[in-house]
Amino acid sequence: MQRVVWAVLLSFAIAMVLGPVLIPWLKKLKLGQTIYELGPQSHKVKQGTPNMGGVIFAVPMFLVPLILSVGGQRWPWLSMAFVSTIGFGLVGFVDDYIKVTKKRSLGLTPMQKIVPQVVIAAALSVWAYLTPGVGSKLIVPFTWGEWDLGIFYIPVMMFILVGTVNSANLLDGVDGLCAGCSLIDFATMAVISLALAGADAGLTGAMAVFCGAAVGALLGFLRFNTHPASVFMGDVGSFTIGGALAAAAMTTRLSLLLPIIALAMFVSSLSDIIQVGYFKYTKKKTGTGKRVFRMAPLHHHFELGGMPETRIVSMYMTVTALLCLVALTMFI
Amino acid sequence: MQRVVWAVLLSFAIAMVLGPVLIPWLKKLKLGQTIYELGPQSHKVKQGTPNMGGVIFAVPMFLVPLILSVGGQRWPWLSMAFVSTIGFGLVGFVDDYIKVTKKRSLGLTPMQKIVPQVVIAAALSVWAYLTPGVGSKLIVPFTWGEWDLGIFYIPVMMFILVGTVNSANLLDGVDGLCAGCSLIDFATMAVISLALAGADAGLTGAMAVFCGAAVGALLGFLRFNTHPASVFMGDVGSFTIGGALAAAAMTTRLSLLLPIIALAMFVSSLSDIIQVGYFKYTKKKTGTGKRVFRMAPLHHHFELGGMPETRIVSMYMTVTALLCLVALTMFI
Repeated sequence: MQRVVWAVLLSFAIAMVLGPVLIPWLKKLKLGQTIYELGPQSHKVKQGTPNMGGVIFAVPMFLVPLILSVGGQRWPWLSMAFVSTIGFGLVGFVDDYIKVTKKRSLGLTPMQKIVPQVVIAAALSVWAYLTPGVGSKLIVPFTWGEWDLGIFYIPVMMFILVGTVNSANLLDGVDGLCAGCSLIDFATMAVISLALAGADAGLTGAMAVFCGAAVGALLGFLRFNTHPASVFMGDVGSFTIGGALAAAAMTTRLSLLLPIIALAMFVSSLSDIIQVGYFKYTKKKTGTGKRVFRMAPLHHHFELGGMPETRIVSMYMTVTALLCLVALTMFI
Repeated sequence: MQRVVWAVLLSFAIAMVLGPVLIPWLKKLKLGQTIYELGPQSHKVKQGTPNMGGVIFAVPMFLVPLILSVGGQRWPWLSMAFVSTIGFGLVGFVDDYIKVTKKRSLGLTPMQKIVPQVVIAAALSVWAYLTPGVGSKLIVPFTWGEWDLGIFYIPVMMFILVGTVNSANLLDGVDGLCAGCSLIDFATMAVISLALAGADAGLTGAMAVFCGAAVGALLGFLRFNTHPASVFMGDVGSFTIGGALAAAAMTTRLSLLLPIIALAMFVSSLSDIIQVGYFKYTKKKTGTGKRVFRMAPLHHHFELGGMPETRIVSMYMTVTALLCLVALTMFI
């Protein structure tokens, strides 16, 4: 427990220092960009608010567990988590960086984004499959039963990894929403890792510290990202969060818990898929595309319905907290 | 743990039902009031936002532990907590009610407020002093030493009770601030009560459920109180919170932990005392009163400095969460 609290405090401190250093610099980059970018997409972007703020929490999320685990054991889990966090985070970073420096609004093409994601997911899934103690069995929530997927573990885990990363990306649309909800998720995963201590002390040492560092880093980031946001996390932020959270679930074999504790992410993807699917279906059938939601992902549906941003975040965080609490009853 | 989660969910549900029922009714009362009340104090009040919303969480905070503890043991602790919560809450309720119905801006006079508070605090302190297991000894944070106050336990505990209640009242000045910070405090006290299970299972059953109910109730209330607030908690709310939190600390003998986990409240009182004291001192000394803060309590200092309400709440909640985490290392 003490080490986890140290991880929280240390990464909070690093994020608090990085914020005031990075934000003015990102603002300069952004201002250089917006001059060239006063296109129609700017109606959604809050003019002048810099992007790529995810670096503020990505750095302590990686550095702190690295420092605190020096001399410790159980590197395989932590290494997987690092590869997932940094790997997916880098894809997001490149995307953000191209947007800013090449003065393009879109960054990487969808293909250029998805291919490296699939490659990273494939590498991680095979690695997890071959690692004893992570292997091919997923824990079934609440029953503690095990579901042995055999070789199908690899495609399923690839789907979970890529799905989580892109869902985290979709959830990032309102000030403090993605950071706030995932903060609760990581806190829950930290408590779960601690609770699993009885079963496996080494795993705990590594993953509880890893999740604790994420909690502190996001808490620090929220200082700058709470409405009205001084900085957005960007793809580097949401991909880092998705990669880290999926890795935490993968290494603890609790991936099936993700739709519960990370329902906010799940629902963002699902609403997007429903919206696009229904639009295409009705377009084909009747000639005119119809929409289920005012706008997808779901949080924009609430936003266009007149709910203030702060209320949307509060609602999402409340539901996340209650679901995480229910999930925790499985372990404590 | 399961019972605590039930307490959280049940009181959240009750608060969610009470909100939409009570708010329109409180709004009518409030509108009847504002017609007569367009005085200068209204510059701070958000016109039309009803008060007395604290009833939304006060009801489940009392009902849920009552229901869930039926047939259980260890009534003394829970009874003390109930008396404290309802007793102080009623003082606040009367104050609010007079403001609304008598069309007076001030409600109870300071004397009419403090006398019943002192009486309730005295009764509780004597009761706690005479109850085995609560008694005259306070636990010293982190060292686990005990500090036996003897008969002085009574005035000290009276001071802690009255101080906490009025500090909670002072903290209630920004949308979601008092509810958000105290939510974290109650969650911490719930975890501490659970952690003390090893030492005393009966205490846990009662107080963890009591604190859990407070967490759920406040989470539900925040749905309506998050910026932009649809309802304010009023004195009935802040007094209920203060009474419940002080009682939770008193029964677990952890009152000395309050300045740490409830620093937000502590700092609100302290800044108020410093402001008034310094003003009086400089007025006496130089003829003109000087101020330390732009305005007291401290959160108004930040507000007048240009910090958005949402950022103030985020900052206070973050600091509270980190301090609670540090406090938790004592128990886990």
